[in-house]
Amino acid sequence: MSGEWFHLLNVIGVAFFAVSGTLLAHKKDVDGLGIVVLASVTALGGGTLRDILLNQPVFWVAHADYLYATYAAVFVTVFLIRVVSKFSGYYFLLADAFGLGLYNIVGIEKSLINDAGMVVAITLGTITCIFGGLIRDVICSEIPLVLRGGLYATACIAGGLVYAALFLLDVSYGWCIIASLATTVFLRLGAIRWNWEPTIFKRGKKLD
Amino acid sequence: MSGEWFHLLNVIGVAFFAVSGTLLAHKKDVDGLGIVVLASVTALGGGTLRDILLNQPVFWVAHADYLYATYAAVFVTVFLIRVVSKFSGYYFLLADAFGLGLYNIVGIEKSLINDAGMVVAITLGTITCIFGGLIRDVICSEIPLVLRGGLYATACIAGGLVYAALFLLDVSYGWCIIASLATTVFLRLGAIRWNWEPTIFKRGKKLD
Amino acid sequence: MSGEWFHLLNVIGVAFFAVSGTLLAHKKDVDGLGIVVLASVTALGGGTLRDILLNQPVFWVAHADYLYATYAAVFVTVFLIRVVSKFSGYYFLLADAFGLGLYNIVGIEKSLINDAGMVVAITLGTITCIFGGLIRDVICSEIPLVLRGGLYATACIAGGLVYAALFLLDVSYGWCIIASLATTVFLRLGAIRWNWEPTIFKRGKKLD
Repeated sequence: MSGEWFHLLNVIGVAFFAVSGTLLAHKKDVDGLGIVVLASVTALGGGTLRDILLNQPVFWVAHADYLYATYAAVFVTVFLIRVVSKFSGYYFLLADAFGLGLYNIVGIEKSLINDAGMVVAITLGTITCIFGGLIRDVICSEIPLVLRGGLYATACIAGGLVYAALFLLDVSYGWCIIASLATTVFLRLGAIRWNWEPTIFKRGKKLD
Repeated sequence: MSGEWFHLLNVIGVAFFAVSGTLLAHKKDVDGLGIVVLASVTALGGGTLRDILLNQPVFWVAHADYLYATYAAVFVTVFLIRVVSKFSGYYFLLADAFGLGLYNIVGIEKSLINDAGMVVAITLGTITCIFGGLIRDVICSEIPLVLRGGLYATACIAGGLVYAALFLLDVSYGWCIIASLATTVFLRLGAIRWNWEPTIFKRGKKLD
Repeated sequence: MSGEWFHLLNVIGVAFFAVSGTLLAHKKDVDGLGIVVLASVTALGGGTLRDILLNQPVFWVAHADYLYATYAAVFVTVFLIRVVSKFSGYYFLLADAFGLGLYNIVGIEKSLINDAGMVVAITLGTITCIFGGLIRDVICSEIPLVLRGGLYATACIAGGLVYAALFLLDVSYGWCIIASLATTVFLRLGAIRWNWEPTIFKRGKKLD
C-alpha cells in the first residue's frame, strides 16, 4: 500500500473511533475534559498498543495530525450533539463498525510491513481494533463490549482472513481493502441486527 | 533544564504520587503487598507510559533510584499512618496536587527533549499526570477521578500552557517550573475547595 | 541459562496461564471469542509488559510459537471442559500457581540478561507474574486477585529472592529454577490452603 493511502485510512479510522468514543462518553454523562480523555483513549489506544508491540514509533507521537484529527472529531461531535436535539445510538454503532474495519486493515498492513507472520499480523489487527474500546469500557467500569458477544472480535478476524486470502492471491490493494472492510462492517452490523452469536462454550455450564 | 534538576523533580514527583497512592490504598482497606502494588502503579504508571510512547528507556528500569524512592515513600507513609492516630484526607489531595504539577513539567520537558511538538508535549505531560491515577482507580473498580471533574486534566493542561508560553518567551527554567507548578496546584486545589467545574457538555442530556 | 531452556520455560509458563485464563473465563460465563481474548491477555499480558519495559522485542510478536501455544492451550482446555462433566476450581489455582512460578523465573532471567540490577529484576519478575492476571480481573470488573491477599505478590518476591540468593552463590541454573519454582508454588498454594496472610497495615483503620 502506498504510504499516503495508509496514512489516510489511519486518519479516517482514528476519526471514526473518536466519534464513537465521544458518543459513548456523552451517554455515560461524563463531563468536561473527561470526554476528550475517553474519546482519545478509544481512538488512539489500539494503534498505540500496536506500535508499541511492533517496537515502532507510536504513530500519533511521530505525526501530530492524528492528534489533531482526534481532537477535531471530538469537538465536532460534541458540537453536533448540542445542536441536534436527539441522537440515535445507531450512529455510535455505525461509527464504531467503520472504525473497526479500517483500523483492522491498518493494523494488519503495518504488521506485515514490519516482517510479522500472517497469524501475528491478524492477531495484531484484531488487537488494534479491540484494545481502544476495551480500555474505554474498563475505564467506565463496564464488562467490555468485546466480551459480550456480538461478533466483535470475530468480525475483525474474518476481515483479516479475507484480507490475507486476497493478498496471497495477488489481488490489488484497493480490492483487498474494500473486501476486508465490507466483511468486517457487514458481520458486525449484521450481528447487532440479527443477533448472530458464536457458541464455543456451552453456556450455563459453570465451574464449582 | 540541567539533567540533575530534571532528575530531582522527577524523583520528588514520583515520591508525592507514591504517598497519594499509599493513602488511597489504605482508605480502600487493601492489605499486605497490595498497597505496594497500588502505590507503585500510581507513582510510576504515568511516567512509564510517557517513556514507552517516546520510545525511550523506561526511567525506573534505567535508574533504580526511582524504585527506591517509591518503596521508601510507601513504607514511610505506611509507618506514619500506623503511628499517627488520625489522618486527614486532605494530605492525600495535597500530595496528589503536587505530584500532578511536578510530573506534568517533567513530562513536557522530556517530550520536548525528544523532539515532540508543543501539542504532543502538552498531551504527553497530561498523560504522565493522569495515567497512574487512572490505572489506580480502574484497578479499584472506581470511575477514575479524572473523569469525575474537579479540573484534574484541565489543571495539567493549564500548567502545560503556562510552561509552553514562558518557555517560548525565553524565561529561565526556574521560573517556568515555579509558574507552571503554581498554576496546576492552584487550579487543582481551588477546584476542590470551591467546586469549580467546566461544562463542555450540557449535563443530563442523554443519547437514546 | 541456555536459550533453549529459557524458551521452553517461557512456553510452558504461557500455556499454564492460558489454561488458568480459560478456566476463569468459563467461570465468568464469557462466551465465544471473548474466552480467547481473556485467556490470551492473562497468558501474554505480563510478559508483554516486561519486554516493553526492557525495551526488547515483544516475545510473542518476535516468535509466533508463543501465540500458537496460547491458542492451543485455550482450545484444549475449552474441549476438556465440554467433555469432562465437572471441573474443580482447584485446577485453576494449580495452573495459576505453576504459571506464577515459571513466569517469575523467566522475568528475572530476562531482566538480568538485559543488564537490570537485582531490585529491578525482582520487581520485573513480579510484574511479569501479576500483570496478566491483573488485567484479566480488571477487564472482568473484579478487584484483582493480587490485591485481595493470598500472598500472590509475596510468593513471587520470595521466589525471586531465592533465585537471586542461589544465583549469587553460583548454584547451577537447574537448582536455582527448581528452588525458586518450589518456593513460589508452595507459598501460593499454602496461602490458599491455610489462609496465610501478611499484615502490613492494621486492618479496619480508615482515613476520614
